[in-house]
Amino acid sequence: MPRVTIADIAEEAGVSVATVSKVLNGHAHVADATRQKVEALLAGHNYLRRRSRTVRTVGLIDLVINELDSPWSIEVVRGVEETTASHDSGLVVTAVHGRAADTRRWLDNLVKRGSDGVILAVTALAPAQWRKVEEFGIPLVVVDPIGHPDPTIPSVGATNWHGGLAATQHLLALGHRRVGIITGPDDILSARARLDGYRAALEGAGVGVDPALEVRGDFHHETGFSGARHLLSLPQPPTAIFASSDLQALGAYDAVRRAGLRVGPDVSIVGFDDLPVASWASPPLTTVRQPLSDMAAMAARIVLEGVETVLPGEMRRAELATALVERESTAPVPAR
Amino acid sequence: MPRVTIADIAEEAGVSVATVSKVLNGHAHVADATRQKVEALLAGHNYLRRRSRTVRTVGLIDLVINELDSPWSIEVVRGVEETTASHDSGLVVTAVHGRAADTRRWLDNLVKRGSDGVILAVTALAPAQWRKVEEFGIPLVVVDPIGHPDPTIPSVGATNWHGGLAATQHLLALGHRRVGIITGPDDILSARARLDGYRAALEGAGVGVDPALEVRGDFHHETGFSGARHLLSLPQPPTAIFASSDLQALGAYDAVRRAGLRVGPDVSIVGFDDLPVASWASPPLTTVRQPLSDMAAMAARIVLEGVETVLPGEMRRAELATALVERESTAPVPAR
Repeated sequence: MPRVTIADIAEEAGVSVATVSKVLNGHAHVADATRQKVEALLAGHNYLRRRSRTVRTVGLIDLVINELDSPWSIEVVRGVEETTASHDSGLVVTAVHGRAADTRRWLDNLVKRGSDGVILAVTALAPAQWRKVEEFGIPLVVVDPIGHPDPTIPSVGATNWHGGLAATQHLLALGHRRVGIITGPDDILSARARLDGYRAALEGAGVGVDPALEVRGDFHHETGFSGARHLLSLPQPPTAIFASSDLQALGAYDAVRRAGLRVGPDVSIVGFDDLPVASWASPPLTTVRQPLSDMAAMAARIVLEGVETVLPGEMRRAELATALVERESTAPVPAR
Repeated sequence: MPRVTIADIAEEAGVSVATVSKVLNGHAHVADATRQKVEALLAGHNYLRRRSRTVRTVGLIDLVINELDSPWSIEVVRGVEETTASHDSGLVVTAVHGRAADTRRWLDNLVKRGSDGVILAVTALAPAQWRKVEEFGIPLVVVDPIGHPDPTIPSVGATNWHGGLAATQHLLALGHRRVGIITGPDDILSARARLDGYRAALEGAGVGVDPALEVRGDFHHETGFSGARHLLSLPQPPTAIFASSDLQALGAYDAVRRAGLRVGPDVSIVGFDDLPVASWASPPLTTVRQPLSDMAAMAARIVLEGVETVLPGEMRRAELATALVERESTAPVPAR
């Protein structure tokens, strides 16, 4: 027997899909008469609630990501895929390139074929669009939100502030006092948290913050290169640089080499992410490990097992711990 | 109305799924009586043949890959995703880790939900398994096969031999006469083709092949490091190294740096792939561009539009061109 959809029930009841979804999800704001009518139809059609563990599911989970062009994205795909596979579910991967047309096309496709849950990596949907996903009763979860959109949507991030703190404390412990930073984009909360961790470490050590040593970046290689080149050209250049991403750190490597200096002995560099490229760099990069695939795996568990199972109590957000990984790009401050 | 599956038809006809599939695909080896019985059932159930352009499709394409842990894999995912999205199809990504259990799980899942086509990146299926995919009438195509399994299965590769030739000719043109190579795995045809291109260039230039300068590798960073370290420790070390992958080239960078030498001025290095990491390396890596995302996109077009549409005539295999990308890791042979 073909499955009855929420849309079928809504049409028969003469209400919106959103209303049927609210009834299914036990929301309060539905008139009693409407609720009873919808529930009777659901029961009559033998409609099975998706979230309960006994229903027949579609067997597919959606991962929506802005771009599939960075080492970052493969970590997220891998973490989600390992979890969906262990739950006997397929993983549908879609890149939307920040384009509304691509997002609409994905949504149309989603509605046609169905999905057991949607994972957004960085925000890829406008609020109206994730409302639409919710209306269809499909669970939604966000990985590493750039600006957390809605506290009712479960999300998984990393302890970015602590990561920035640990990176900077490591450099301070090596004797560095002039420590520069190349930040991520202003509008990304995780970038701001890393910057604040950096400042907190400097102030905690009594070194103080010097605005001349803070250069704006965007997480990409190019701004790591240009940012480090700028810092190294200062009258009093820093002896160490905290790059807010591994790719920025690699850009800084190139600026250090072109200045005739060596990464490590002459200029210490710390990255953030611990992507595979960090250990392939020469010298291998000291960086803050952000457990991207673990975060993605937890997001997948939330949609597959329900947020209540994965996150205790009322919490809808988890931050997984970051950790400093010491390699060879950091060294004691050189004697002058 | 729920769709009738090939399995339903097979059961009703009292034949195997393979037989129904053969009838659907017009194979010759089916008894006439059986063919007529199956065709009558197909017609009676209004079964729509999947390969014809007018059928209602599942709206999903499968990409099966061994691992999702390398920069290589994200290029393949991206190329397939861009093509499936432009065809209004979803992309299901599965990693099988070379494990039979994972492959079986994916196959079970595939059979349940259906798929409009399967793309294998490097071989991830045993012959018996892709026969099973074919039995279900699902088109199959292979990207960059490691040892081409079956000439009847369409495949897309790169001109590996020409790439090895071009990399080595570039080094010869810079005056290098002692050119080492770190190969890929012995059992991967593409690796063997790159080695043969290297040898052909040396012999074509009258330099001759020196077995001492050929070191075995496996495409990964570690063997690039150990291979280059070995080559640099020879009584007469090479002045240039052709690494059979970008990751191996990055490993060689680290060996050169640890030997107190500079990549470029002291030792020239050429990679193979032109992954994004190649341009992030310091100095940026001269390498042979292998159009992985284009190869993946062509494979996706083959399953979505049919092999006849994409590849002309009787051919079932295409090799896309490789091209040398000159950056800063190669330089004229140093004066001694």
